[in-house]
Amino acid sequence: MKINIGIITISDRASQGVYEDLSGKAIIDTLNEYLKSDWESVYALIPDEQKIIEDTMRKLADEDNCSLIVTTGGTGPAPRDVTPEATQNVCEKMLPGFGELMRQVSLQYVPTAILSRQTAGIYKKSLIINLPGKPKSIRECLDAVFPAVPYCIDLIGGPYIECNEDVIKVFRPKS
Amino acid sequence: MKINIGIITISDRASQGVYEDLSGKAIIDTLNEYLKSDWESVYALIPDEQKIIEDTMRKLADEDNCSLIVTTGGTGPAPRDVTPEATQNVCEKMLPGFGELMRQVSLQYVPTAILSRQTAGIYKKSLIINLPGKPKSIRECLDAVFPAVPYCIDLIGGPYIECNEDVIKVFRPKS
Amino acid sequence: MKINIGIITISDRASQGVYEDLSGKAIIDTLNEYLKSDWESVYALIPDEQKIIEDTMRKLADEDNCSLIVTTGGTGPAPRDVTPEATQNVCEKMLPGFGELMRQVSLQYVPTAILSRQTAGIYKKSLIINLPGKPKSIRECLDAVFPAVPYCIDLIGGPYIECNEDVIKVFRPKS
Repeated sequence: MKINIGIITISDRASQGVYEDLSGKAIIDTLNEYLKSDWESVYALIPDEQKIIEDTMRKLADEDNCSLIVTTGGTGPAPRDVTPEATQNVCEKMLPGFGELMRQVSLQYVPTAILSRQTAGIYKKSLIINLPGKPKSIRECLDAVFPAVPYCIDLIGGPYIECNEDVIKVFRPKS
Repeated sequence: MKINIGIITISDRASQGVYEDLSGKAIIDTLNEYLKSDWESVYALIPDEQKIIEDTMRKLADEDNCSLIVTTGGTGPAPRDVTPEATQNVCEKMLPGFGELMRQVSLQYVPTAILSRQTAGIYKKSLIINLPGKPKSIRECLDAVFPAVPYCIDLIGGPYIECNEDVIKVFRPKS
Repeated sequence: MKINIGIITISDRASQGVYEDLSGKAIIDTLNEYLKSDWESVYALIPDEQKIIEDTMRKLADEDNCSLIVTTGGTGPAPRDVTPEATQNVCEKMLPGFGELMRQVSLQYVPTAILSRQTAGIYKKSLIINLPGKPKSIRECLDAVFPAVPYCIDLIGGPYIECNEDVIKVFRPKS
């Protein structure tokens, strides 16, 4: 089974070309380090519009068969931050443990980590995870939650993902 | 007041007799160790069907007067895992601190603990708690949250539960 | 811009005059220690009635221009505890990180911290935070979350709050 991973950068300014999308690039670089299996990225750069975010998530899952969709941006308390709301609307099941762990990890660096509303959930056969906006925080969060990602994708009927054990220690419990 | 505790094992395969329900047994054994007060278990073994789970929770609370109802199974991200959704539908108040603490405790053992969607809540005069599926994790989670359970049941008008202090240290704040 | 902060004590008994509201006083004392900027408190003492709580939150935000509204009381599992439900009804965005961190901090003192259902969220240009009922726990929780509060209020378009750095270390990330 092919491994497609969706990367959605959600940012009014980056989508208008005001600055370069370093966050999406950071995610792709990190996943290239993690994954031993062949994989393909499906990339989208969109503004902080809830309907566009939801439509993009559904398209990446339904049409592009992405088993994993990661977002960056739009998880704060500002009026335009609506990524968690979009994620909750799209997902059939929420996975609160992802947000809890990512906030806990980020709290080791900045007390404002509690302002992040990051979450994760399942839409059909796709795992959707909200990551922070900044490249450094993205890596910290991915390092914390990724060990559980391949097994989660097994459980929802996705492809078997193999990782570079010297970079990230993936865990699959014996059933 | 009599202490009735409901134990619901939620598992398609165990309910079909494919394997023995060791999880329900582990809960009963643990509660027998914890409780000094006399108590009676009301046991149900049911498939991962949301309506059946909800009906069983309501029956154990309304007809069997269970002040505490613990479930095991059905809290993961797989399509058939619907225990948290059933719990949320039945409960009038959610208690997110239970799920947070149980995931935190389980994270000390396995990184896949973030996939658990365990929660807890109040339905009328019953405290409902989702536990993990595996006997070893059940014990780890109960050891973490049970110190708060008797006081919670005091607050919702249930019976006064006394525990074996050498096994589990129950806490009741002085009001 | 003027800094108005709403303090809502939610307690059937205190609002009936059965006992003095030490909790509201503890919040005001703590904020006086924290804030270097001039600020004004808008105080309300109300019973555990969901509609009254919601109306009071909206009034403090809409009419009294409070950028920060803190509540005390009504976050437990008892039948009359409805502060989190009122907060969720009023807020457009929830900030789960506040509740997670406050429960984690309180857990260092009492295992019953998991019974607290404290949350926080954004209503228009106001940050609403539920604090515990007891003065000692109020201080512990404020010490934990307040470092992120001024930046949150920046993000939602509120006044710039300056604090006494020797009392509380506020953090504003460089954007």
